[in-house]
Amino acid sequence: MTSRLKEPDLPRGFSFAAAACGIKKSGLDLALLVSETPTSAAAVFTTNRVQAAPVLASQVHLRKSRAQMRGVIINSGNANCCTGSDGYAAAAATALKVAWELGRLHPTQILVCSTGVIGAPLRVEKILRGVPDLVRARRASAGAFSQFARAILTTDTRLKWAAAKYRSGGKLVRLIGCAKGAGMIEPHMATMLAFVATDAAIAPSLLQRALRRAVAPTFNSITVDGDTSTNDTLAVLANGQSGARRIAREGAHFRKFSAALESVCGALALAIVADGEGAQRVIEIEVRGAPTDRAAYRVARTVANSPLVKTAFAGADPNWGRILAAAGRAGVKFDFERADLRVAGILMCRGGREHPFSERLAHQRMLAKRVPVVLDLHAGRASARVWTCDFTGAYVDINASYRT
Amino acid sequence: MTSRLKEPDLPRGFSFAAAACGIKKSGLDLALLVSETPTSAAAVFTTNRVQAAPVLASQVHLRKSRAQMRGVIINSGNANCCTGSDGYAAAAATALKVAWELGRLHPTQILVCSTGVIGAPLRVEKILRGVPDLVRARRASAGAFSQFARAILTTDTRLKWAAAKYRSGGKLVRLIGCAKGAGMIEPHMATMLAFVATDAAIAPSLLQRALRRAVAPTFNSITVDGDTSTNDTLAVLANGQSGARRIAREGAHFRKFSAALESVCGALALAIVADGEGAQRVIEIEVRGAPTDRAAYRVARTVANSPLVKTAFAGADPNWGRILAAAGRAGVKFDFERADLRVAGILMCRGGREHPFSERLAHQRMLAKRVPVVLDLHAGRASARVWTCDFTGAYVDINASYRT
Repeated sequence: MTSRLKEPDLPRGFSFAAAACGIKKSGLDLALLVSETPTSAAAVFTTNRVQAAPVLASQVHLRKSRAQMRGVIINSGNANCCTGSDGYAAAAATALKVAWELGRLHPTQILVCSTGVIGAPLRVEKILRGVPDLVRARRASAGAFSQFARAILTTDTRLKWAAAKYRSGGKLVRLIGCAKGAGMIEPHMATMLAFVATDAAIAPSLLQRALRRAVAPTFNSITVDGDTSTNDTLAVLANGQSGARRIAREGAHFRKFSAALESVCGALALAIVADGEGAQRVIEIEVRGAPTDRAAYRVARTVANSPLVKTAFAGADPNWGRILAAAGRAGVKFDFERADLRVAGILMCRGGREHPFSERLAHQRMLAKRVPVVLDLHAGRASARVWTCDFTGAYVDINASYRT
Repeated sequence: MTSRLKEPDLPRGFSFAAAACGIKKSGLDLALLVSETPTSAAAVFTTNRVQAAPVLASQVHLRKSRAQMRGVIINSGNANCCTGSDGYAAAAATALKVAWELGRLHPTQILVCSTGVIGAPLRVEKILRGVPDLVRARRASAGAFSQFARAILTTDTRLKWAAAKYRSGGKLVRLIGCAKGAGMIEPHMATMLAFVATDAAIAPSLLQRALRRAVAPTFNSITVDGDTSTNDTLAVLANGQSGARRIAREGAHFRKFSAALESVCGALALAIVADGEGAQRVIEIEVRGAPTDRAAYRVARTVANSPLVKTAFAGADPNWGRILAAAGRAGVKFDFERADLRVAGILMCRGGREHPFSERLAHQRMLAKRVPVVLDLHAGRASARVWTCDFTGAYVDINASYRT
């Protein structure tokens, strides 16, 4: 993530472009990803009952063209959500325009995504006006990809991208992905916007399966504020241009591809948490000894979303009692007088009561960029891990005046 | 709440005392409430799996002495939670000491409560040393009650008390209550510490019934941060000293008493939200047109606990889309394109999309001390109301360094 993007990291046959069309007050706000040939596509979407118009449009497009997809168009600055029939018309018109400019494609061959303020009317004419130049400007270059990744951001403070590659029968297969997301982040299906392009050759149904599996321990295991967005979309396009054999069933090649996809998703998900609105550090919450996987996940998520826990981490305060208290209200049965808790590698609680530790050392270690929390309930054998970030005054400042 | 407490507001036969015994670094931290005669008692406790030693002790005491209760002893500054067997011994020793000093009573005639930091050992010897003077110092005066109400506070910035009275067969019946709570506040049974004393005469089983009913629309309908405390206790003592007829069954007298109890609980619950850590304003969230009461409550609570909604209110930002987005992830089925939303009396969303309104007027109205939100889902006839407060940088500051 920190290293510089190089041309050879790009999968073959994809090009990218970005532009400023005036949806945001300033800066890039329109992004385009194109595969020069039809590709397999898979995607997961938000589970919020309130779904943005582009989410609904993209779901339809995916069903119709999952083996013939050609690209994704994204605008930032406006979520095109709660915008009524005008919103649906805007999403459809955008896909239609991009499809036409790419050479009279079918509109369902384009996925549409939006991110930004909810409820404000989308000035779609600004997007439509920008599309022809955007399509012409697309390039298969690291620079163009960086611009693309930048144009999808809103309150993000950093570019988030990740790449992976592996060999398959002598051919190099590449994956590259980028994501946006800093607030309104909470598991349940895909979270925020993320796109992965790969030159792997894989059947759409297997691509969807690999994506579902990759999402559980990555995007679905992070949370910034417990708020599920209305626009969450994670899409993967696989155009087969690597020349590697097409993956048509589960097996060694599928496993290799799945591992690479999970590594890209994992890196993007962690990058989102690290860039959580106002965040200073990532907190990795591992719950062990739970009766079931579901229970472990539930406890981990309750701790991860506790404002009292998150604010204590903002101050690097070893207030371990709050972690146990949050676990206690997760709706999972356990005997807290058997629970052990380690924070930043320091045993702070053993058998439900304080284990002597140095406050100074604990405070120092909790100032790290990444702080592990391990809570053992001693109530079973299941475990789960969830990543979150601390809750600072800056989060409040950002969100108290997001629109104004 | 704002008016000055007067002697005639006090129910007969109760006395109060407070002292500084050194559990807190400074200030009052020990509080005593005594009925000079045996009283009916009822209480509700936290539903957190992690329960403090005094909560467990008080549950036992209530079962044994619900018709013979004599008082409540409270320490602030330390929750006596996650303190192992030492914690249970400390709670038991405290009740024993108070009971003895009051005239060799049985220890179960005293309820014990603690509030403050979780997990730190309680220096019970400080409490035990303070009890004899505390018992001697008790007075049936408005001043003593104020000191009592002050001694139970932690991060609270204001005294919270409420009183009610009604006539029953020519006799005046009085209720007085006080509460503490500013963070770790979330419904589910009783929340935080609250005590109500009354000179009504009522059977313990009916007192418990009246309390349960009073709690649902009051303490169980507020939330500050979604964190359920480990020490929540709401206790009511009714000593019958008003001289009014004893309430032994449901009927007109029971209804009168229940109404008075609910009014005291409601005032205390609202006072807690208004004094929520860092809070500037109270947000009243009313959900209408839900399929069931439970669904209405669930939507209202999800909106009330959304950090994005609460931070928008901190900035008085009419970001209504976040309210709808939070409702959408509550796990309740509704068609958001039928939903109407009013904030501060202004229709902002109709049929799931923006209804034109003046941003300036909306911002101005949202700066009020109390802002109503009415969300109509048009999906049924049930409704619910939940009160919460805005989420400010001050909440973060308070909780990032609570222990240090």
